Amino acid sequence: MKKTWLIYLSGEIHTDWREQIMSGAQALELPAEFVSPVTNHEASDAAGDVLGEESQQFWRDHKSSKVNAIRCNTLIEHCDIAIIRFGGKYKQWNAAFDAGYCAALGKPYITLHDESIIHPLKEVDAAAKAWATTPQQVVKLLQYTLNGA
Amino acid sequence: MKKTWLIYLSGEIHTDWREQIMSGAQALELPAEFVSPVTNHEASDAAGDVLGEESQQFWRDHKSSKVNAIRCNTLIEHCDIAIIRFGGKYKQWNAAFDAGYCAALGKPYITLHDESIIHPLKEVDAAAKAWATTPQQVVKLLQYTLNGA
Amino acid sequence: MKKTWLIYLSGEIHTDWREQIMSGAQALELPAEFVSPVTNHEASDAAGDVLGEESQQFWRDHKSSKVNAIRCNTLIEHCDIAIIRFGGKYKQWNAAFDAGYCAALGKPYITLHDESIIHPLKEVDAAAKAWATTPQQVVKLLQYTLNGA
Amino acid sequence: MKKTWLIYLSGEIHTDWREQIMSGAQALELPAEFVSPVTNHEASDAAGDVLGEESQQFWRDHKSSKVNAIRCNTLIEHCDIAIIRFGGKYKQWNAAFDAGYCAALGKPYITLHDESIIHPLKEVDAAAKAWATTPQQVVKLLQYTLNGA
Amino acid sequence: MKKTWLIYLSGEIHTDWREQIMSGAQALELPAEFVSPVTNHEASDAAGDVLGEESQQFWRDHKSSKVNAIRCNTLIEHCDIAIIRFGGKYKQWNAAFDAGYCAALGKPYITLHDESIIHPLKEVDAAAKAWATTPQQVVKLLQYTLNGA
Amino acid sequence: MKKTWLIYLSGEIHTDWREQIMSGAQALELPAEFVSPVTNHEASDAAGDVLGEESQQFWRDHKSSKVNAIRCNTLIEHCDIAIIRFGGKYKQWNAAFDAGYCAALGKPYITLHDESIIHPLKEVDAAAKAWATTPQQVVKLLQYTLNGA
Amino acid sequence: MKKTWLIYLSGEIHTDWREQIMSGAQALELPAEFVSPVTNHEASDAAGDVLGEESQQFWRDHKSSKVNAIRCNTLIEHCDIAIIRFGGKYKQWNAAFDAGYCAALGKPYITLHDESIIHPLKEVDAAAKAWATTPQQVVKLLQYTLNGA
Amino acid sequence: MKKTWLIYLSGEIHTDWREQIMSGAQALELPAEFVSPVTNHEASDAAGDVLGEESQQFWRDHKSSKVNAIRCNTLIEHCDIAIIRFGGKYKQWNAAFDAGYCAALGKPYITLHDESIIHPLKEVDAAAKAWATTPQQVVKLLQYTLNGA
Repeated sequence: MKKTWLIYLSGEIHTDWREQIMSGAQALELPAEFVSPVTNHEASDAAGDVLGEESQQFWRDHKSSKVNAIRCNTLIEHCDIAIIRFGGKYKQWNAAFDAGYCAALGKPYITLHDESIIHPLKEVDAAAKAWATTPQQVVKLLQYTLNGA
Repeated sequence: MKKTWLIYLSGEIHTDWREQIMSGAQALELPAEFVSPVTNHEASDAAGDVLGEESQQFWRDHKSSKVNAIRCNTLIEHCDIAIIRFGGKYKQWNAAFDAGYCAALGKPYITLHDESIIHPLKEVDAAAKAWATTPQQVVKLLQYTLNGA
Repeated sequence: MKKTWLIYLSGEIHTDWREQIMSGAQALELPAEFVSPVTNHEASDAAGDVLGEESQQFWRDHKSSKVNAIRCNTLIEHCDIAIIRFGGKYKQWNAAFDAGYCAALGKPYITLHDESIIHPLKEVDAAAKAWATTPQQVVKLLQYTLNGA
Repeated sequence: MKKTWLIYLSGEIHTDWREQIMSGAQALELPAEFVSPVTNHEASDAAGDVLGEESQQFWRDHKSSKVNAIRCNTLIEHCDIAIIRFGGKYKQWNAAFDAGYCAALGKPYITLHDESIIHPLKEVDAAAKAWATTPQQVVKLLQYTLNGA
Repeated sequence: MKKTWLIYLSGEIHTDWREQIMSGAQALELPAEFVSPVTNHEASDAAGDVLGEESQQFWRDHKSSKVNAIRCNTLIEHCDIAIIRFGGKYKQWNAAFDAGYCAALGKPYITLHDESIIHPLKEVDAAAKAWATTPQQVVKLLQYTLNGA
Repeated sequence: MKKTWLIYLSGEIHTDWREQIMSGAQALELPAEFVSPVTNHEASDAAGDVLGEESQQFWRDHKSSKVNAIRCNTLIEHCDIAIIRFGGKYKQWNAAFDAGYCAALGKPYITLHDESIIHPLKEVDAAAKAWATTPQQVVKLLQYTLNGA
Repeated sequence: MKKTWLIYLSGEIHTDWREQIMSGAQALELPAEFVSPVTNHEASDAAGDVLGEESQQFWRDHKSSKVNAIRCNTLIEHCDIAIIRFGGKYKQWNAAFDAGYCAALGKPYITLHDESIIHPLKEVDAAAKAWATTPQQVVKLLQYTLNGA
Repeated sequence: MKKTWLIYLSGEIHTDWREQIMSGAQALELPAEFVSPVTNHEASDAAGDVLGEESQQFWRDHKSSKVNAIRCNTLIEHCDIAIIRFGGKYKQWNAAFDAGYCAALGKPYITLHDESIIHPLKEVDAAAKAWATTPQQVVKLLQYTLNGA
């Protein structure tokens, strides 16, 4: 297909997995465009601050999360494939939330995580189309899928 | 409405929050029926074993999770309201996955968790209709919603 | 059809139009069940208070409205017909919101309002199946529609 | 995302809020295209007149509103984000109708209104992704959302 | 299946084809419930008159048709099978409209008409699951389909 | 909106109403692209002949109609607005079928027909966004809708 | 859940696998109702004969298949779980067709087949929730899923 | 329509039917773009190997099929028309699966197969828009459908 596939990169923001996938895809000249949520942690937490300060943590988080959802939900609904990355640290419930969102929409997604967290991710992996452990594997799956060969 | 509301109780399985909600609703004679995923941890992990043993952990988990998904997805799609509980321990990615699934379907859900995990649950809470900290609050929300008064 | 039609009564809460419709339908033994949002103004405004007090008006309203939405959205999605009443006073934006919600879902609705507000309600009426000025007219429309004669 | 986001500007037509948002977005070179309903009040009221004159106000309004709905519904369904503005005057039920329409479709929208009408707009705001009080805030939300940074 | 199948009988109102199908189904004790639009021609044309008289034919028809649509669309969306009858006379565009409505919803329908109008009904028949020429054939199709034998 | 609106021209094929609308739109430089079913009557009836001859009229019609449906359904589902024309002659059940198909999909359509057939078209007109009597009126509605002014 | 689960039994008709599943479920008093397509081969092939004889095999098959589709599609859309059985003989393309139909609808299904045909069924199994080799395994999966324990 | 129609070529991979259709369409300068699943048998079977080797045939097939599904489902959902080819050999359950998937989505498809397998394909053909026996016939159907003449 001549069209550009839209790939949504969801999840962990503390390592360079997004860059690895994007540069790998670029090297192969894959017909892919990559999009992500806002990956700057502080900017993301402050997304709603422009609308006025909040004294309570819950409402500040609430306001920022709803602002972030405008971008995230729109991109998930438009994307062709989502890559959902779970790192070794933090709760990362937003990544699992995105996976459930994709699953309900029938949107294909690939998980990217280490073997050490297979068990707690079993429901997330069961609804995924593939589980990869390295960005290089993701690039190869994209190459195969987008080029059809 | 004379009909019985179907309430799906998702998430943490190590405390008696389900029993508290159900007995509270029963005491008030709410028109509610409660359903849950299989909450016996060992039985849930072994859901696919009847189909043959697996030597690899990934595939055992995969097989069991797909079997569990038959029940979970069907109940989520049929329910009127989901209550999604996050405890203090474990990854609980399946609970966040269920929240995302509900959000994409437009199914209303209420989260139940302590104040200590507000920040990592901010995306999950942003798409919820309410955040409660005790089963008693959930019962009161159900009373208000189901009785309409 | 032997089934009971579910009729959702949305909008103005300061006159007895709901009672007039319900008693009229009962007198005719129509196969109808009537449901409404919480029509007690104070209870509705306080719907979220059980989850903790809010110091800011915006968040108290926000929390209560989301709680109320659990009931309202569920009933709109389950109902067969909505009756949406606009009185002479107040903004009543929630009633117009419900009308738009019904329109997008393809759910048939009947408006009930005086001739004096035809012009500002023109978009709401354009997507309605009928415009009535009295509860008695609504009862007659229900009689015709439900009994099919 | 390289694509242009389509932003629908719904609601009040008596102030220059649309122009402020559009010029603000242009100054920042945001990848946004803005669309609106017909904002000329007289033209909008007369939208159906080309099809023949009506002697009754109700039918003239009805005919024009259905004609206007061709444009409005199509643009709402195509847009990525709606901005819904409520001014201090008039009923503006069409704006609340658009909000309900967006909510039922799962289309993200931002409300733009003063603090003085928080309470009557609580249901509309509860289903919104954000509430802004100035066009400048809207521009900043768009900048954050569209540029992802 | 133990459930009762809901059969919608659309179209021509000048012969007793509905009664023939219903009595045939009753004789066989089929698990079927039959529903129809209002088949009294005068009552149907006057469906909107309760809302006030109209001086123009177009608006009287318009008002009545929208009222009738409440019943018709609801029953089509709820039914399991539609039977759509075309007689030898009149335009019967409403019957073809119902067929298109069913087709777009993926609702199975059976046409009932003489051989003489095969050609003008070719698009309607192409989207139908079956074409019958007598009510007795329809009863046999229902017997086979509902009893599964 | 900068995009080109896709307009589907359905119905009667014996007069030049399509040409009138297209040349009128071209003169105004409207951002419209027009599509139609195959309007050559003989070619349309023979659409399936390439797949082998049929001895029975019903199956020849059936085969051709299904082939024609590939084009018609695809264009209806892609179009932004449908114009549905009813002439003074013939059954034209396919035009009413298209109207019902549009109605079920929520696709806006405009009917184009003389005053003499208002009554038999009342259900078709009730679900339409507008009823026009001349191609020039249709062009004006498109001008208003597409240009938004 | 107190409700009865509707289980659709699709596929091979030459062995007693349906009876084994049904009697196994009955022995365990599972809250299940079982439905099937018409499993009498000759009756199924002749489903359309009541509408008139056909001289060509293609059209006889076509007519009967469309009649059978009324029952099959309705039951698939209503069922909670489908069991799809592939035997050792015949093409059984209808069973694979049903699997694809379920997959597109998001309807959970379990395949039932021998190990010898794993490879040609790999796409069908990949979209299934489970693969069983004996009716007894299916009964155990239903027991686990329906009883939730 | 000026747009390029996207045609998905599903099924048999051992003859040059895809090339015949594509070169036929090119010779006629049809506005068509053709896409296919991966048609290299060995590459398709190995699609998941990059993610790690599997010792069991079932899981190797499972992993590869899920990877292949990313491409196949995405292309089916994006295509305008699917051509589904059944050859004389092999089970080809994936082709029948694709047909069922298309049918449930309402996506039009054309089957391409010999007369010898009419009977086992009757359900697949019944939901198709056309049955062709040669690639040349398919090209002619595309010419008629895409050019609209």
